[in-house]
Amino acid sequence: MVAATKRDKKNIQASIQPLVELTRHDMLAVNQLILAKSGSDVEMIPEVANHLISSGGKRLRPMITLAAARMFGYDGAHHITLAMAVEFMHTATLLHDDVVDEGGLRRGKSTARMIWGNQASVLVGDFLLGQAFKMIVGIGSLNCLGVLSNAAAIIAEGEVMQLAVAKRMETSEKEYLTVINAKTAALFSAAAEVGPIIAGRDDTTRSALANYGTSLGLAFQLADDALDYSGSSDNLGKNTGNDFREGKITMPVILSYARGSQDERLFWKKAMEEGEHNDAALETALMLMKKHRSLDDTIRQARHFGEQAHRALLPLEASQQKDALIETVDFCISRIS
Amino acid sequence: MVAATKRDKKNIQASIQPLVELTRHDMLAVNQLILAKSGSDVEMIPEVANHLISSGGKRLRPMITLAAARMFGYDGAHHITLAMAVEFMHTATLLHDDVVDEGGLRRGKSTARMIWGNQASVLVGDFLLGQAFKMIVGIGSLNCLGVLSNAAAIIAEGEVMQLAVAKRMETSEKEYLTVINAKTAALFSAAAEVGPIIAGRDDTTRSALANYGTSLGLAFQLADDALDYSGSSDNLGKNTGNDFREGKITMPVILSYARGSQDERLFWKKAMEEGEHNDAALETALMLMKKHRSLDDTIRQARHFGEQAHRALLPLEASQQKDALIETVDFCISRIS
Repeated sequence: MVAATKRDKKNIQASIQPLVELTRHDMLAVNQLILAKSGSDVEMIPEVANHLISSGGKRLRPMITLAAARMFGYDGAHHITLAMAVEFMHTATLLHDDVVDEGGLRRGKSTARMIWGNQASVLVGDFLLGQAFKMIVGIGSLNCLGVLSNAAAIIAEGEVMQLAVAKRMETSEKEYLTVINAKTAALFSAAAEVGPIIAGRDDTTRSALANYGTSLGLAFQLADDALDYSGSSDNLGKNTGNDFREGKITMPVILSYARGSQDERLFWKKAMEEGEHNDAALETALMLMKKHRSLDDTIRQARHFGEQAHRALLPLEASQQKDALIETVDFCISRIS
Repeated sequence: MVAATKRDKKNIQASIQPLVELTRHDMLAVNQLILAKSGSDVEMIPEVANHLISSGGKRLRPMITLAAARMFGYDGAHHITLAMAVEFMHTATLLHDDVVDEGGLRRGKSTARMIWGNQASVLVGDFLLGQAFKMIVGIGSLNCLGVLSNAAAIIAEGEVMQLAVAKRMETSEKEYLTVINAKTAALFSAAAEVGPIIAGRDDTTRSALANYGTSLGLAFQLADDALDYSGSSDNLGKNTGNDFREGKITMPVILSYARGSQDERLFWKKAMEEGEHNDAALETALMLMKKHRSLDDTIRQARHFGEQAHRALLPLEASQQKDALIETVDFCISRIS
């Protein structure tokens, strides 16, 4: 909604709509499969899963899988299963993340852990992951299995890494990029790469889509980081500073800290490490980000990865899906620029 | 140690030693692989993993995988990887279990969650699961992947099921068997079934080993349930009643409740659902179990599944491994009889 409003204002923005339109038919099948596979005789499983699945994420990852298969003329049914598995892996990560972050809200709704407890979040996450792998095995493609199991291992490693760097103001730009590469970009990369795999394309094409996904994931996350601090100047301010209030150390904070004076660093340490993050502190944080151009530079980095995502698709033949995937990159970045 | 002491006393008991001896050489390779694959640049991962892996479990599951491959003349190296993956899956389950049970001790040591927090337990569990699947994919056997991913899904479903039945005294015998079938027996079954798969044996042999594993798992769990209440009459008493104090509803409790008077049921509800489980309550619980022969009947059920495990292996050709697997069943049951 933020993006749409901004886009309407500027009227020059990229849209996710072409991707949505191109995958609309397939996404109906994905949604049906999601409902079928999150069903269980154990009552709590569909309850928890549906709570999260129906809470209105953009479903960017499964749409990418669908487009990345169709753009190479794939006309089987495995892309539906893969898209479902990718969304289940993502949902499982969110459920486990909420336990780890001790999060109370996600997408404006209470998190599963607040309603059903940590236990259910851990176990339903495990259940969705188990279902995802069972379904992927059913497809019978060892290459798809390799890509997705590798992503699962990288995501988990990234989560532990984040736990170690979280609340540590000395986290470097490079360390942070490593974390979001594992936590966010790895699944985008896998979601894109499985498309050419089931379409029977060669390694060069696989790499192109994998690189597209990685770069898109990094651009997406950095744009998100900037977006969280950039709503203050208009009426969208109520969502500003969520990361700040949760003490999440993201790129704008890392840049501000690295460029800050002794006093400023003390402020950041108090805010992020010791939890002094009231509204006055948020004002100060926004002022320091402006002073050091931290948001501008985060957006600049997002654009850099966006360009990499464009370049990755350059060698591929023209198609509606290719155009839609390229516009999706611009859309992710346009949310904040 | 409990078993060894009892065995020495009676001098007629079965031993796990033949299985240990037959798999000793392979287990060295498994242990090396475990150490290598729980390594990570992220410091916390090997710390947490090693804490649990080195805490002295019997490693029954990987030994079963090794024996179940070797008994069919398998002479490749995949059984080592599979045994490692099975142990990682088991360890991941323990880590997530501890978060779910809010457990403080496991095998007499502090649980990972007490030392590193819930977060690390959730995420390192995910990491080990991710590593396990990456390694299994590397073997390239879709049949092994099918069996193990199916087990992962069943285990997760079983955990959620247990969450729903936990603290509910009305849990029936049948419901409880369904839970332990999913939580415990599914992994024993998968651990045994992958042996004949990589050895290239037919479906009948696969089923035989799968059935052996399932029955052994059920026998093992029921024996464990009884063991937890049966140390009072000798010097092993300090470990008696752990399940009781944790409010875990196991078979002896279910039988005692089902057979109890109104007053007795009130006692069980207070103890298990409301947490009144001091030493005096434990004495009462033991008395009621004796009165209703709940331990005897739990042991009787364990023996029944033990016999099923024996029968499953009956059609197979003779081998040292077969003998060792059969004696392992008897060993699991002999711990309490």
